[in-house]
Amino acid sequence: MSNRIITISREFGSGGRTIGRQTAEKLGLPCYDQELIEEIAQESGLNKDFIKEKGEYAPRSSLFANSFYYDRSYGGFSVQDLLWQSQRKVILNLADKGPCVIVGRCADYILQDRHDLLKVFVYASMEKREERILKVYGESEEAAVKRLQEKDKRRRAYYRLYTDLEWGVAQNYHIALNSGVLGIDRCVDILVSLY
Amino acid sequence: MSNRIITISREFGSGGRTIGRQTAEKLGLPCYDQELIEEIAQESGLNKDFIKEKGEYAPRSSLFANSFYYDRSYGGFSVQDLLWQSQRKVILNLADKGPCVIVGRCADYILQDRHDLLKVFVYASMEKREERILKVYGESEEAAVKRLQEKDKRRRAYYRLYTDLEWGVAQNYHIALNSGVLGIDRCVDILVSLY
Repeated sequence: MSNRIITISREFGSGGRTIGRQTAEKLGLPCYDQELIEEIAQESGLNKDFIKEKGEYAPRSSLFANSFYYDRSYGGFSVQDLLWQSQRKVILNLADKGPCVIVGRCADYILQDRHDLLKVFVYASMEKREERILKVYGESEEAAVKRLQEKDKRRRAYYRLYTDLEWGVAQNYHIALNSGVLGIDRCVDILVSLY
Repeated sequence: MSNRIITISREFGSGGRTIGRQTAEKLGLPCYDQELIEEIAQESGLNKDFIKEKGEYAPRSSLFANSFYYDRSYGGFSVQDLLWQSQRKVILNLADKGPCVIVGRCADYILQDRHDLLKVFVYASMEKREERILKVYGESEEAAVKRLQEKDKRRRAYYRLYTDLEWGVAQNYHIALNSGVLGIDRCVDILVSLY
């Protein structure tokens, strides 16, 4: 197994992004995370805020969700679909450029046909993620919990819609790490050792 | 996090048992796998073949499965329940004795209240597991596939019945390793490094 490209899927608040950044840094690789948004904006012509909000999450309201599904079911091409296509193209291009770490945005699925891929899932218990969000984002406890549950739900729905796979099921990844138990540093060490 | 006890849940044919044995050997710890059967036999008075067949797997036929569920639903205590209780007692006792590696038998669930536990799930694609079974057990390809699917199904049902959790969902473990992609040796190295 060669793994020139590492994709990191992560639960909100699990520190997956930090693990991606630190792993890339230790390996001397580029890490694409927020950088993807800039590239996707250029590719699609879409607004960066829209990409940030819609590029990993299913829509919030059930009304919009219906129109979102409707578009797809009836062969229409929604703005969300345009975003998905652009996101896909950007990720395929970046992977072709050379070794890298890519955080989120269904990169594991988009790059699944490559043989040089290490697919990582990072997760943690709700308590540990709440703790981390409070520490990193400084939010009130109540708001943090609310955001956690909503983000998980919307990421799961988005992933299922575009990949037909279940988000967070071990079998879809090469390694799954509980960052709350193992700690960020140990997760980084494992990924560096696997590269 | 201290992890004096490592539990390994594994898909049939993923090499989880081998990973457990080799990890234990490298760490100089006892590994309980087939040894559990002997201990459970002493504890329960049940036949070793029965323990081997029923200690991780839900019954094969739906008829027996019904009576099995019936016993539980109506407050009865089936032989399967006696086995579960004995298995539980043996695993709790072994864990109290000192650091060790325990393979299978819902040890991750039985020991979940301990703070010195590393819960591992080992899995691999169907193709990789078929390959391994043919190599290790020398079975015909057809028989191997049939056994794989049946064993997975019955282990999942057994785990769900006694733990109320989903088997193989990353969130129930501390680390999940795809042995087909990472290879047995690398899985062992990761677990040794985490100890």
